[in-house]
Amino acid sequence: MYTCSEERMEDMIKTFSKYGDAGHGGVTRYSLSEAAIQARQEFQKRMEAIGAEVKTDDMACMYATIKGSEPDLPGIVMASHCDSVKNGGNYDGILGVMGGMEALTTIVKENIPHKHNLTAMIWTNEEGSLYPPSMMASGVICNPYLPEDIACNFRQEDMLKSTSILDGVSTFGEALDASGYKGDKANRINPDDYKAMFELHIEQGPILEAANNDIGVVTCVLGMICYRIRTHGQADHAGTTPMKYRHDALYAAAKVLQYLHDEFDKLDPELVYTTGEIVLHPDVHTVIPDFVDFSLDARHEDPEVIKQVVSIIENMPKEVVGCTVDYEPAWTRDTVYYDKELVGYVQEAADELGYSNQKINSGAGHDAQFCAYMIPTTMVFVPSKDGHSHCEEEYTSVKQCTQGASVLMNAVLKCDAN
Amino acid sequence: MYTCSEERMEDMIKTFSKYGDAGHGGVTRYSLSEAAIQARQEFQKRMEAIGAEVKTDDMACMYATIKGSEPDLPGIVMASHCDSVKNGGNYDGILGVMGGMEALTTIVKENIPHKHNLTAMIWTNEEGSLYPPSMMASGVICNPYLPEDIACNFRQEDMLKSTSILDGVSTFGEALDASGYKGDKANRINPDDYKAMFELHIEQGPILEAANNDIGVVTCVLGMICYRIRTHGQADHAGTTPMKYRHDALYAAAKVLQYLHDEFDKLDPELVYTTGEIVLHPDVHTVIPDFVDFSLDARHEDPEVIKQVVSIIENMPKEVVGCTVDYEPAWTRDTVYYDKELVGYVQEAADELGYSNQKINSGAGHDAQFCAYMIPTTMVFVPSKDGHSHCEEEYTSVKQCTQGASVLMNAVLKCDAN
Repeated sequence: MYTCSEERMEDMIKTFSKYGDAGHGGVTRYSLSEAAIQARQEFQKRMEAIGAEVKTDDMACMYATIKGSEPDLPGIVMASHCDSVKNGGNYDGILGVMGGMEALTTIVKENIPHKHNLTAMIWTNEEGSLYPPSMMASGVICNPYLPEDIACNFRQEDMLKSTSILDGVSTFGEALDASGYKGDKANRINPDDYKAMFELHIEQGPILEAANNDIGVVTCVLGMICYRIRTHGQADHAGTTPMKYRHDALYAAAKVLQYLHDEFDKLDPELVYTTGEIVLHPDVHTVIPDFVDFSLDARHEDPEVIKQVVSIIENMPKEVVGCTVDYEPAWTRDTVYYDKELVGYVQEAADELGYSNQKINSGAGHDAQFCAYMIPTTMVFVPSKDGHSHCEEEYTSVKQCTQGASVLMNAVLKCDAN
Repeated sequence: MYTCSEERMEDMIKTFSKYGDAGHGGVTRYSLSEAAIQARQEFQKRMEAIGAEVKTDDMACMYATIKGSEPDLPGIVMASHCDSVKNGGNYDGILGVMGGMEALTTIVKENIPHKHNLTAMIWTNEEGSLYPPSMMASGVICNPYLPEDIACNFRQEDMLKSTSILDGVSTFGEALDASGYKGDKANRINPDDYKAMFELHIEQGPILEAANNDIGVVTCVLGMICYRIRTHGQADHAGTTPMKYRHDALYAAAKVLQYLHDEFDKLDPELVYTTGEIVLHPDVHTVIPDFVDFSLDARHEDPEVIKQVVSIIENMPKEVVGCTVDYEPAWTRDTVYYDKELVGYVQEAADELGYSNQKINSGAGHDAQFCAYMIPTTMVFVPSKDGHSHCEEEYTSVKQCTQGASVLMNAVLKCDAN
């Protein structure tokens, strides 16, 4: 078995962590920002240094390719993203880019034979933090292969018009034109020229760490639903309205939230559900709220469990503490299973390297989940310290990152051999 | 007994409702805005038409005075405000201004004898909706008489710097200078030149309507506390964090809210308490919230009940569903009792006019509560349909408004006679 270099991995982590350094251990590196362009330049410099050819497509995705001994065969891609959320960490996304770079570097330096062209790739704007939505470029590039209810949210012409959340004016299309990385549509990853896509990523959860496992062999991206739940009351003066006359939409929302927790907790314990957003009207401390709207995100691999969740929502009490309660589905996605053959390569690679591992699913969305509709795809997870992600505390040790890269590389070599 | 004119009252309601008409039955009439200046011009025009002398003070409060037969005696004031909240109603504040105007008009037209000078007055910026805080001018003018912990929030030099919530730049001081209504500080209402202040106001609650009473004889403004209550959890990914590892600050907040409801509901049933504001961080539907901060406003006449509320807050569980809970007092005010003699005049006037009435307290704040620290003060309430206020649905019938004005006028005449 071949293994990657901890020394090079450490150097890359230190180098990329400078691009967008937010000063508290993490980065703010919005897609196509100056910081992200520095990261792209670093990618290009290092990949050209090992003799890779670097191209970009019309969504500014970058492809660094080393030729195989049979260069007409469809290639194998290792990809992730180099953009971050606001005050994100040094591993989400960029680890998968560094993993691809490190795999190619090891293969070149150690002269490891391979038939297929091998590509390290950067997907543009995975986070969608500055220009929503997330997974924008994979949504556009994989569009013809996506289910229609997802595809319709990722039309290229709409994406180009996505406006910056910072100024509300400048668009993703303008940023793309100005970036210097807008290339040829013909360079897009596609099912004719590529046979497989692998994505190395941090787990972003606590499961591997709790089980003391080095590697997560990812089998699927969880199916999920997202609903908006609303309570409607009556705005009245906080000082003049006796309790018995109130229709307090926030108190109703608290009761609905508790009801949903109680009911969902009766379902399969692997179900995860979250209320992360709440809107209150009029949101004035002297006024009884007349309207609350909160998000409900629920995820599980088994569509039967998701159906039970939906049934609980549909059968919620319609009136709570004098307020009416209603709901609206925001969006859903089915569980996306990764390619069994590729999952097998990851499993074998981890086992043969002697890294402790387990099957795991991905609760988070990734470009890989869109790519899976287009070509065989899978993912490799490494542990996240304390399960933290999308925050500056995000941490995975150099050793763990390098183990991830080694699994990625060996899985790719197995794919290459078959 | 003298009574006011329903015809004139109806005409005034219709006229003033045009100034700032928000198109859904109510008004947006921020203090010193163009709409508020139109209302002030109407006040001046009508008061000069009955022979009143109109002056303004340095906070742009307006005073329309008709001389009494013994003009060196200290005067009697009938005052309220002409500004509204955003999308407010046609009665809150302006009714007390119209009531004073109507009382003076009736007294002049019917040649009703009176010894003291009688003044209809407009307090500037009661709502504080554009330039916070509310009760700004009364806070400045009564400042030397207020308890220090309240007075410190109403220093004139600070108030002049209050910035517009709309543009965050222009100040109340600039609006005052530009209004054309900034007058002489010597014209301020003060304890040497004035013996009493009466304020007619809508109840802003459902009590009078539920009891089928025409008039509320107001005895006090409720004491209140305002706390901020906070829950601190851990932000993690909504899709990747099993339920058992979560520290969900919003779920904790829902549980704390329920706990507080349960405990407060064991106290005196006249206690009112409200959570009207909530701040959630990071407020992203895919992230478990790590921080929630919500307001808690509680009001009761009896300081012992308020102490029980504080004790419940202080003894809340410090940890809920893995989140820490803490709190901070935002501000408090003691119950302000209105002048017993003036309350008696209101009671007699209502009784003698044959209007059904009851004693009532004010849960809302009013300029009268600051004025009460300076000179003898009281209030008269009329019913609010369905208890609604601070909204365009606010409604009190012409008959009820006129009854309020009649009680105001007769109470003032009783004060004049003593």
